[in-house]
Amino acid sequence: VTSFALGLPAEELFPRRAYGLALRNVLSTDPQALQYGPSSASLRENVVELMRRRGVQCDRDEVFLTSGAQQGLSLLARLLLSPGASILTEHHVYPGFQQAVQPFEPRYHTVPTDRAAGIDVDAVEHVLRRFRPAFIYVNPEGHNPLSVSMSMEARSRLAAMASEYGVPIVEDDVYGFLRYEGPDQPPMSALSRGHVFYVGSFSKTLAPALRVGWLIVPRELVPILSVLKESTDLDTGTLTQRALAAYLDRNDFAGHITRVCRAYRVRRDAMAAALRRHFGPRARWRSPTHGVFIWLDLEGDVDGRLLLERALDSARIAFVPSEAFAVPGGPQQRNGLRLNFSHCTPAAIRDGIARLAQVLDEV
Amino acid sequence: VTSFALGLPAEELFPRRAYGLALRNVLSTDPQALQYGPSSASLRENVVELMRRRGVQCDRDEVFLTSGAQQGLSLLARLLLSPGASILTEHHVYPGFQQAVQPFEPRYHTVPTDRAAGIDVDAVEHVLRRFRPAFIYVNPEGHNPLSVSMSMEARSRLAAMASEYGVPIVEDDVYGFLRYEGPDQPPMSALSRGHVFYVGSFSKTLAPALRVGWLIVPRELVPILSVLKESTDLDTGTLTQRALAAYLDRNDFAGHITRVCRAYRVRRDAMAAALRRHFGPRARWRSPTHGVFIWLDLEGDVDGRLLLERALDSARIAFVPSEAFAVPGGPQQRNGLRLNFSHCTPAAIRDGIARLAQVLDEV
Repeated sequence: VTSFALGLPAEELFPRRAYGLALRNVLSTDPQALQYGPSSASLRENVVELMRRRGVQCDRDEVFLTSGAQQGLSLLARLLLSPGASILTEHHVYPGFQQAVQPFEPRYHTVPTDRAAGIDVDAVEHVLRRFRPAFIYVNPEGHNPLSVSMSMEARSRLAAMASEYGVPIVEDDVYGFLRYEGPDQPPMSALSRGHVFYVGSFSKTLAPALRVGWLIVPRELVPILSVLKESTDLDTGTLTQRALAAYLDRNDFAGHITRVCRAYRVRRDAMAAALRRHFGPRARWRSPTHGVFIWLDLEGDVDGRLLLERALDSARIAFVPSEAFAVPGGPQQRNGLRLNFSHCTPAAIRDGIARLAQVLDEV
Repeated sequence: VTSFALGLPAEELFPRRAYGLALRNVLSTDPQALQYGPSSASLRENVVELMRRRGVQCDRDEVFLTSGAQQGLSLLARLLLSPGASILTEHHVYPGFQQAVQPFEPRYHTVPTDRAAGIDVDAVEHVLRRFRPAFIYVNPEGHNPLSVSMSMEARSRLAAMASEYGVPIVEDDVYGFLRYEGPDQPPMSALSRGHVFYVGSFSKTLAPALRVGWLIVPRELVPILSVLKESTDLDTGTLTQRALAAYLDRNDFAGHITRVCRAYRVRRDAMAAALRRHFGPRARWRSPTHGVFIWLDLEGDVDGRLLLERALDSARIAFVPSEAFAVPGGPQQRNGLRLNFSHCTPAAIRDGIARLAQVLDEV
């Protein structure tokens, strides 16, 4: 199967050798490396430096290390939600986020997403005038699944609204470092710190198997999050934290991200060219500035789930149809699909998109 | 501070070199090692073999890998508890377990523990005749904190009751492989599989920083647990799983456990000798067959918390007083303390116990 389905990074870009050296170095010099341990101050310092490059000033006491961004979302859900709470999201929402909040069975207020500017901020304000959701969930860059990055105006307005209405924003920026073009816009955490909780991850830039992500939150929340995390998995592995800190100390991580972005830009462009060539006017889509997905709105009455069935059967192509992103009780789009471009080679992308277009012909 | 407080394994026994070689081998040969990945079948096979040595027959489809035993407990809590549920525990309960169930605010039915035979099975039956708790939580070996191992008769009776009353047992066996003397008794999972959910871990035998544990559960629960785990942290790191499997494939893990037990037995005996010498009749305690703790019931009206304060202040000794193990609404013991013997050297143990006895003199 040629899979455009998951948000997998490309294995061939993982710095296996450099990370292996970091592991070796820590294991051979640090007797505590395999013990229970506190959150690594050195790794948090590295995150502070990363955030600075992203335009966010913070210090290491505001960095809360997690076992990946998914744990960050899950802990924020536990921190912010109580039974009967509501949340504000877009119509299309990353399913992992929906899983993270599911234990609290929140009610969803949903708003549309402009395919060019991101979350519809007027619609957000309309909701906030009438309801008090526990928080607003957004992806500032490379939205999952719609792949849009929010305009700077939308960020400013939304950050101001969060303060004005006293409703926190959970800003899931796991694709924020994967930028292919356009201005380097800061996330909302750079604009309004008290009301914006930032979720970051090393999974997309470095490697998912590290299972290391982070939150940037007001420092008074760190002890509360620590207790919540302790109850779910005690701590994030000491060896991984220290080896990752050693990797970041000794390697040019900015250069690594640049190489990853260069490779993904080639893949994005290969997918865009193939879509132009094979899909033509049968779908609307935009080439994203960030992230790992291209979102297609198909013309006409095509059912994404049916297309997926056919694509798997007759062309062995996988993707995720729009219905997978609908929230409970929210509107369902049928004719959309999310295509990942980071995992397949450009050749596999060209070939896969051509075959997918053929399947669409036959539906 | 000489700390007898936490259940830390001894760092000097971690197989840093052998595990480092396993990591290196996996990183240099497996391009998927840093990618998202499914639960490792090879690691689950290794767990099946470990369980066989513990007297439990299972197969790899009944093994559910977790990010440590704490995650196992937390997922079982999510699986088995709903708001308003009650659970059955002993009066003294590992605080990490209490944290794992806390989100559901369960009501506790508590029963006493016989210091020689473990959980009071008559008292359990008395509760089960009147109530239907969501599950029973037990430590078959090296109880945390009371350090008792259940008699075989208690295991059989309790396992039979679980079936008879249809109430599952969560059997937390993280200390089950640390046996110093006495017969090698199987856990309850060997007696009644359908109603007993086993919780295991590599933290105490190998190294906590791996953050790898496992559950043995009926196979039909594995897909449900997978969804629950996905919502909290997506997966347990691929590299760790594969390196751990490689370590277990290439090394004599049974021999490693034997070496760990030999070292801990020396420490246990050092602590027991020091207690005999310095505490004499001022405390009742037993030398445990399993685990990493000695439990002291102090004679007279000594307050464990007060003793801890004084011990920290005047002798720089730490331990955990009995009140830390009381459950919400349950009975509180004031004059008990839990002493860990796995982490300090025998010399530090001898010295620390002598100083602690002096503090007790002065309270």
